[in-house]
Amino acid sequence: MIKTKPTGPIPAGFHSFNGELAVGGQQASALVSQHGSPLFVYSAGRLDVRIEQLRAAMPRDLDIHYAMKANPFQPLLSHMVGRVDGIDIASGGELTMALAAGAEPGKISFAGPGKRDDELEQAIRAGVTINIESPSECERALRIGASMGKRPRLAIRVNPDFDLKGSGMKMGGGAKPFGMDVDLVAPTARHILDAGADWRGFHIFAGSQALSADAIIETQAQTLALAARLATAIGQSPDHVNLGGGFGIPYFPGDEQLDIARVGTALSNQLKQLPDILANTRFAIELGRYLVGEAGVYLTRIIDRKVSQGQVFLVTDGGLHHQLAASGNFGTVVRRNYPAAIASKFDAQSSETVSIVGCLCTPLDRLSDNAAMPKADVGDIVAIFCAGAYGATASPANFLGQGAASEILVA
Amino acid sequence: MIKTKPTGPIPAGFHSFNGELAVGGQQASALVSQHGSPLFVYSAGRLDVRIEQLRAAMPRDLDIHYAMKANPFQPLLSHMVGRVDGIDIASGGELTMALAAGAEPGKISFAGPGKRDDELEQAIRAGVTINIESPSECERALRIGASMGKRPRLAIRVNPDFDLKGSGMKMGGGAKPFGMDVDLVAPTARHILDAGADWRGFHIFAGSQALSADAIIETQAQTLALAARLATAIGQSPDHVNLGGGFGIPYFPGDEQLDIARVGTALSNQLKQLPDILANTRFAIELGRYLVGEAGVYLTRIIDRKVSQGQVFLVTDGGLHHQLAASGNFGTVVRRNYPAAIASKFDAQSSETVSIVGCLCTPLDRLSDNAAMPKADVGDIVAIFCAGAYGATASPANFLGQGAASEILVA
Repeated sequence: MIKTKPTGPIPAGFHSFNGELAVGGQQASALVSQHGSPLFVYSAGRLDVRIEQLRAAMPRDLDIHYAMKANPFQPLLSHMVGRVDGIDIASGGELTMALAAGAEPGKISFAGPGKRDDELEQAIRAGVTINIESPSECERALRIGASMGKRPRLAIRVNPDFDLKGSGMKMGGGAKPFGMDVDLVAPTARHILDAGADWRGFHIFAGSQALSADAIIETQAQTLALAARLATAIGQSPDHVNLGGGFGIPYFPGDEQLDIARVGTALSNQLKQLPDILANTRFAIELGRYLVGEAGVYLTRIIDRKVSQGQVFLVTDGGLHHQLAASGNFGTVVRRNYPAAIASKFDAQSSETVSIVGCLCTPLDRLSDNAAMPKADVGDIVAIFCAGAYGATASPANFLGQGAASEILVA
Repeated sequence: MIKTKPTGPIPAGFHSFNGELAVGGQQASALVSQHGSPLFVYSAGRLDVRIEQLRAAMPRDLDIHYAMKANPFQPLLSHMVGRVDGIDIASGGELTMALAAGAEPGKISFAGPGKRDDELEQAIRAGVTINIESPSECERALRIGASMGKRPRLAIRVNPDFDLKGSGMKMGGGAKPFGMDVDLVAPTARHILDAGADWRGFHIFAGSQALSADAIIETQAQTLALAARLATAIGQSPDHVNLGGGFGIPYFPGDEQLDIARVGTALSNQLKQLPDILANTRFAIELGRYLVGEAGVYLTRIIDRKVSQGQVFLVTDGGLHHQLAASGNFGTVVRRNYPAAIASKFDAQSSETVSIVGCLCTPLDRLSDNAAMPKADVGDIVAIFCAGAYGATASPANFLGQGAASEILVA
C-alpha cells in the first residue's frame, strides 16, 4: 500500500469551467491548445486583486514596490509597472527589462551584492537609485559617477542586526554578503553626502517568505528603530526607507495565508509614532513572490501513464527545467508537494495515488510525489500552482536540451 | 573564530603558469580577458586523456558512449563525437544538437521517460535508436513509424530490479518512471519483433555518480545476468546492450577517484563468461559526467571583498545561475564545498578563511563556504573545478536577469 503524501493548498479563487481549471476565464485545455504545453499562465485579474487587497490593508502612504526578480515576464512586468510605486531590480539585465516595460527611472532601485562596474554605470546613466552594499562599492559608484559627470542616487543597504523569524531565507542577523554591517552605515552615508551624491536613504531587508504576521510586525518595528538610529547617527533624515518584504505565500500542507490586515494595522500604528528624524521619510515595502506567486499556474500535458511495481507515474512534457523549486531541488532540505491538480479534471474526486514526474531523464524531476488525484491519462493536463514567482527564470530551461516553456498573461 | 570547511579535491593534472591556474596552457587571467567572465573553460586535452585512460582500462570490444546531457556545448560535443562510439541523447533538442555536431544517426540512442510524439517522429526519421520506456510509448513509436512508412529502431529500457549501491542517483531497484519493469520487457520485445520493427536490444541503467569499483562491478554483473535472462525469455539475442554508466568523479572532501582498472578487469572477465545468447551481442557503457566533468573549470572574477561581522566574503560576477550544483542547491541535502581555488594566485598558500559567493541577491548563491584560500581581492579570479558536467545547462542562466556564461573549448 502506497502512503499518500499531501499536496499544498490550492490558492483560493481558482474555479472550474466545463469541469476544467480555468485561468482568466479560459479553460486549461484551451490555453494549452492555443499556446502550447508546457505553459505558464499568469492572471492579470489575480495580480490586480492582490494589489488592491494589499493597498487596502497597508498604510495609505506606504509605497509598494515590485521585486521583479520574482517574475520578469515582459507583459506581466508592464502590467505591474502601472500598478505599483516602484520596481526593484537586481542586475543590469533587469534594469534594461524594467525600462523596456515602461518603469520610470526615478521609481527603480537596484540591489545586489555583486554589481559590476558596467552595471553601476548603466544605473547611474539611467538615474536609478543604487542600494550600496559595501564601502568599496560606494567608492566605485562615486568614481564612476564623477567620471560620467553625473550625480549618482545612492541609498545604503543595511545588513540588519536582526533577522525575520520563521523566514524561508534569512537576509540579516549575522555575517552576510548583503548590505553593510550597521557600524559601517553612518560613515558611508556621510561619505556619500560629502562627495555631493544624492543620498536617498536606506534599504533594510531581513528575510523573505514568512507566513507569521507577528514575525513581520516585529521585524518592521526593528527596521524602523534601526532606520531612526542610523539617521540620528548620520545626522540627516533619509528621504526614503525600503523596509524590505518578507511576505510569504502558502506552498505546503499546513501553510496558512499571511494575515496582512494585522501587519497593516501594526505598521500604521508604528508609522504614527515615528521619531522626528523619520517624520518626513517615505516608506516602502518590497514584495516579489507575494504579489505574483499565486497568480501563476504551470500547465503541462501528460505524455505517458505507467505503472512500476504497483505505483502509478504520470509522465508530463514539463518538469524541473521549468519548475525547479516545485521539484524540491532549489533551497529545499526536505521535499514537499506544491499545490497540484489534474487541470483537465478539476472537479473530479481523487481516486488514486500517483507520482507526477517531468520528462527529464533524472530522478530529481518529480513534480508531485504520491499525491491523491483523480484518475488521469495521456492527454490530460496537470496544473502546478504558485507558479507565478521563481518559476520560469529560476529553473534551468536548457537542461537536457528542452528549452523554455511558453508564458502568457491572461485577463 | 570561524571554522574552516574543507573543499573538494582539485582534479589531478592542473598546473600553474606564471603563478596562475592554466587550462590548455593558457593562464586564467588571459582566458578571462579574452573570453569574458564568468567563463566555462573545457580542456580538449583533458577530454582526450580521460578517454584514452578509459579505453586502456576497459575491454577492447566495449563501446563507450557519451551522454551529452552532461555537457552539450557544441565544440565540446563535436570533439567527443570523433572520439566515442555513440552519443546518448535525452530529447529532440539534443538530437538536433548531436546531428549538428556530426554524430552518425546509427550511433545515437535516445532515452527519457517522457518522449513527445514529435520527438519520436524526429528520432524515427533520423534513424536513431529509441530506448522504449513503457508499453504505451512502444505503441506510439510503432504507430508513428507505420504512418511514416519507416521501420523504427527500438531498444527496451529496463527498470532493473537492483540498484547501483552508493550511487548519487538511483535509477533502479524500485518503482521508477524510467524504463519498464522486468516482467514487461519480454512481451514488449516480442511485440516489437512481431510488428516488424528493428529490435536493437536493451538499455539498463541502475544509477549514477558512484565512486566504488566494487559497487560498479557488482552492478555490471547483475546487468549482464539480467540481459541474459531477458534475452532468453524473448528467445532472441540482442544486437546491443547498453550497460549504463554510474562512473562517478570526486567532488567533495574525502571522495576518491574510481578505480577504473579494477572495473575494466572485472568487466573483461565477465564478458569472457557470457552465456551463448549474449555471445554475439555488442556492449556499451554510457558515461557523461565521468568523461567531461573534470575537464571543465568555471572562472569568475571577484567584484567585491567585504567583511561582515568579522567574516570575509569574496563576491564574484558569477554564481548559482551557472553553477547550481556547486552552490549546493541541486539534488543535495547537505551543502559541501566543490573543489575551488583562487585561479589568479594558484601557487599561493592559503592564509585566510573566506566565503565565496555569487552576485545574485539570494543567500542560496554561495560557491564556497568558509574555505581556506590565499588572500584575494577585487580583480582576482576564482576557479570552481569539476565544472565540465552539469554546469551551464543545469543552472538557471536567466535568474535575476543575468544570462549565460561564456564557454570555450581550449587545447
